[in-house]
Amino acid sequence: MNYQHLIEKIYQEVKPSIGKGKVANYIPALERVDINSFGFAMRTKSGEEYFIGEALKPFSAQSISKLLTLVLCLNNDDTIFDSKVGIEPSGNAFNSLVQLEYENGIPRNPFINAGALVITDILLSQYTNPEDEILFFARELAQNHGIDYNIEVRNSEKETGFRNAALVNFMKSYGNIHNNVERVLDCYFTHCSLEMSCLDLVRAFSFLANNGTHSNGQHVLSYRQNKKVNSLLLTCGTYDAVGKFAYKVGLPAKSGVGGGIIAVIPNEMTLAVWSPGLDKSGNSVVGSLFLELFTTYTGKSIF
Amino acid sequence: MNYQHLIEKIYQEVKPSIGKGKVANYIPALERVDINSFGFAMRTKSGEEYFIGEALKPFSAQSISKLLTLVLCLNNDDTIFDSKVGIEPSGNAFNSLVQLEYENGIPRNPFINAGALVITDILLSQYTNPEDEILFFARELAQNHGIDYNIEVRNSEKETGFRNAALVNFMKSYGNIHNNVERVLDCYFTHCSLEMSCLDLVRAFSFLANNGTHSNGQHVLSYRQNKKVNSLLLTCGTYDAVGKFAYKVGLPAKSGVGGGIIAVIPNEMTLAVWSPGLDKSGNSVVGSLFLELFTTYTGKSIF
Amino acid sequence: MNYQHLIEKIYQEVKPSIGKGKVANYIPALERVDINSFGFAMRTKSGEEYFIGEALKPFSAQSISKLLTLVLCLNNDDTIFDSKVGIEPSGNAFNSLVQLEYENGIPRNPFINAGALVITDILLSQYTNPEDEILFFARELAQNHGIDYNIEVRNSEKETGFRNAALVNFMKSYGNIHNNVERVLDCYFTHCSLEMSCLDLVRAFSFLANNGTHSNGQHVLSYRQNKKVNSLLLTCGTYDAVGKFAYKVGLPAKSGVGGGIIAVIPNEMTLAVWSPGLDKSGNSVVGSLFLELFTTYTGKSIF
Amino acid sequence: MNYQHLIEKIYQEVKPSIGKGKVANYIPALERVDINSFGFAMRTKSGEEYFIGEALKPFSAQSISKLLTLVLCLNNDDTIFDSKVGIEPSGNAFNSLVQLEYENGIPRNPFINAGALVITDILLSQYTNPEDEILFFARELAQNHGIDYNIEVRNSEKETGFRNAALVNFMKSYGNIHNNVERVLDCYFTHCSLEMSCLDLVRAFSFLANNGTHSNGQHVLSYRQNKKVNSLLLTCGTYDAVGKFAYKVGLPAKSGVGGGIIAVIPNEMTLAVWSPGLDKSGNSVVGSLFLELFTTYTGKSIF
Repeated sequence: MNYQHLIEKIYQEVKPSIGKGKVANYIPALERVDINSFGFAMRTKSGEEYFIGEALKPFSAQSISKLLTLVLCLNNDDTIFDSKVGIEPSGNAFNSLVQLEYENGIPRNPFINAGALVITDILLSQYTNPEDEILFFARELAQNHGIDYNIEVRNSEKETGFRNAALVNFMKSYGNIHNNVERVLDCYFTHCSLEMSCLDLVRAFSFLANNGTHSNGQHVLSYRQNKKVNSLLLTCGTYDAVGKFAYKVGLPAKSGVGGGIIAVIPNEMTLAVWSPGLDKSGNSVVGSLFLELFTTYTGKSIF
Repeated sequence: MNYQHLIEKIYQEVKPSIGKGKVANYIPALERVDINSFGFAMRTKSGEEYFIGEALKPFSAQSISKLLTLVLCLNNDDTIFDSKVGIEPSGNAFNSLVQLEYENGIPRNPFINAGALVITDILLSQYTNPEDEILFFARELAQNHGIDYNIEVRNSEKETGFRNAALVNFMKSYGNIHNNVERVLDCYFTHCSLEMSCLDLVRAFSFLANNGTHSNGQHVLSYRQNKKVNSLLLTCGTYDAVGKFAYKVGLPAKSGVGGGIIAVIPNEMTLAVWSPGLDKSGNSVVGSLFLELFTTYTGKSIF
Repeated sequence: MNYQHLIEKIYQEVKPSIGKGKVANYIPALERVDINSFGFAMRTKSGEEYFIGEALKPFSAQSISKLLTLVLCLNNDDTIFDSKVGIEPSGNAFNSLVQLEYENGIPRNPFINAGALVITDILLSQYTNPEDEILFFARELAQNHGIDYNIEVRNSEKETGFRNAALVNFMKSYGNIHNNVERVLDCYFTHCSLEMSCLDLVRAFSFLANNGTHSNGQHVLSYRQNKKVNSLLLTCGTYDAVGKFAYKVGLPAKSGVGGGIIAVIPNEMTLAVWSPGLDKSGNSVVGSLFLELFTTYTGKSIF
Repeated sequence: MNYQHLIEKIYQEVKPSIGKGKVANYIPALERVDINSFGFAMRTKSGEEYFIGEALKPFSAQSISKLLTLVLCLNNDDTIFDSKVGIEPSGNAFNSLVQLEYENGIPRNPFINAGALVITDILLSQYTNPEDEILFFARELAQNHGIDYNIEVRNSEKETGFRNAALVNFMKSYGNIHNNVERVLDCYFTHCSLEMSCLDLVRAFSFLANNGTHSNGQHVLSYRQNKKVNSLLLTCGTYDAVGKFAYKVGLPAKSGVGGGIIAVIPNEMTLAVWSPGLDKSGNSVVGSLFLELFTTYTGKSIF
């Protein structure tokens, strides 16, 4: 299949939708992003890369960093799903807090904020300086040493992140947070401020399309861990729209409010798309549409 | 691949687990079932069939009938997901009622009880006698005119189904049920009492592995509808264990408290397994294990 | 104190508010009531009676009947608060269902619908024909054999009472309802349709202002039961506005969506007021205001 | 009535219950308190004082300080109930968080933790140093300059108060907290550590039994404010046992997990009792019993 031709065709089709949706506006640094930005990159298992638009421009990873920290955490500790965080979808946001209370401070999965905060706490127990480790891990996986945190974004998040502070304190009251609350929040807001481009993302997460083995030969995850992460992405990766995303796109994926989405076609390729206009669920409007058309034209939905 | 050899091998492996778990005991007719029962059948897209154990013995479909009624309903009305029932996972059972209240009586998906009751209500508006239509549909799809309802099971369910009665009344108070409450419950309990064998199931649902087209050539669902149903099965088909089931088995599937599970490998085959011992989530212990080994040995998980 | 003079003065003060609020409109028979209706009656412990406006005109008791059934039930069984219904306020209506689930089908108090339905269920176990007993009890207490149910109101409630049907079924699933669901609902809707006048109410409940002893000498409640009922009225008697009612009026009281309120000044008198315009909480606008002015001018708030 | 004789008689009756219940054990300083401690004091409107046991020994006020801060706050701002905190009971603790979410971060009343934290936040906006103001207010009202905070208790609370930290952050995310989160928590934990004796309490709150006017002539609250505070105490002052407390004791009261209870007989007297053994709701076992016997023997329940 001529992928370059295909992605150019899809780009033409999604163009009229660019600018739709709403840019995340809870912090100034995100609000300033041009809603008309668009980038896409893909990388096959055999290493071929195709891209279009601003595929090399770094954007705010936001919740996509939850995938990175989960993988880093699984590298060191295979037992986190036994007692610290679940693997089930969580229902809507309203319920998440009730659910957290009903389930004694154990978040339903690592991709809701509560779960990602627990993962951050575990990294703080695993590493003296997890911020450095996460950054090093991202750079190494993406083979790009220009990747960095955005300090302005991190600081803004800290100033407005009261709901996340509530979650950490609440889980700490149940004994499911072991480090200092401020330290957990600091590290969490820092890794959410990570900036990567579409190309960085498809390279960094290439192992998800190759049973856990990175294209540089590194065994990032075991076969079983990789299967687990991909299934978690499908059932929990796109906020409260996983069902809709599953039937429209039909791929494991993680989205972020920066407008990025990383998706996986198991055993075949990784795809990353960026466009900052978000739908009501917090997923990129154009990003979702691009991926939907991609699986429609290639027949590569997993369903 | 020699499937007969494979399923015999897996059968030997799961044998020590037969008898584990607990048979559903809320009604006598289900409680009487021998916990040591076991059956498995599979049917490829090209029509090859393999089976082992009591694959021809009918058992209580229970929640598997929710898949049948959803498909029958979609046959007549493609708009149900617009306003009457959602397509998102629901979180745990405790939350489902809160969620139903928060979301004004619109159930999150058609596979939780509330959602299946709405589907039943829609069938009552579509057909004069939906019980007959459902039965006719099952018989036709499975090409087995011996398939029938179990009246004792139906009557027992009616006598103890107060939580379902609460759900229907609650949704009716929101205007999301249009027929008589008793009539909806009657029809629901009737279709849950349907008895089918593993072989019946793989034949009946063969279209799910063939883009919506039954092996007899009938277009049961459109390509898009079929993709939607398969993705719904993956994200919502196995009670509050969809995440666990997704990473262990990695297939769209619907389970029932009768101990049956129907699973789909898109574009390849349908699988059905039956063993009445249930885990805490209500899924068959041995059934889940058998399917997990099947995808492990064949590498046919969708992840 | 010249009570007749006082209530005439208060009547002049509340007059401009008559017509404010909204008449209950979920059933036609209630919606038809003239919003400008007004009546008030009081009866002292020593038997003096004063009234103004349409104090002799029967209106729909609605939730005020919950007080009557609770008292009738306590006559026969002093143990109901041990396991079947609580004595604590319930928070807002939204939470009541969550709470019912969290507390295993035991309603928080006998004045929320769930609790009144449990009381009705207990009466069905105590009496062959509780509808007759309730009516006989009301007539006897009020010394008025013209008191009756309104069959049109009862039938309308039955046709629209799906949320109550949900509650009964839900509690039955927890084993906290022992009679047939339809029978419980029938009896509940029947007693809610009871029609009494302000004068009927102050006579019927005169025992609440006299340590449980009716002015005819009958020991309706024991001293302890009477204290319990009065305290329940204060903490749970006026829907989700008990706090506001307590500090404005400062009396134990039970309101109904028919626009009536019965209030008690312990050891002194009973008061009843009727005006069909309701505030957002379902309490009579003018009724609440009249009682507030009464306690302000007499200094007879319990606080 | 010979009150000294009466309280000695009641003391003999409650003696066998002293030592029952459980001392609050979430911080060491509270856990160390002798469970056999007991004190009682009362002060009539005309200034007569009676006491028995360790009535002069200071103990940890804990939640009783919520009454003090509410009164101080009302001194300066009569509008707090308009938008910042409610006046309705809250249902059980489990629901309080759901409720807070459902009601957009507005706590149901000032006596649940969330509400008291909002009051603390308001004091921080009213005063540069509210800790000093609160202490000064307590000393002045009780006419005892030895009253002080317990720094060990305050520090312990801070170290374990994650649930309170969650509440403040959660409400701040809704815009209902205006000062720095840490500052609010600091001030809250400080005022909870206040130590007062039974005699201090009956003197300090004497105005509640005198329409808002302190025995020293100071107008602490207006007549209307005082009525509101007393009614709030009755409907919300004793954790999730207000209904039970209302029918057993029948007085406006505020309890604390230090084992103290302050109660009011409007227009007559204040009563304070201390005994550290708590029941499941967090109220003093012996304290509740003593007050129940007091209202039984004197007939001074408000019901």
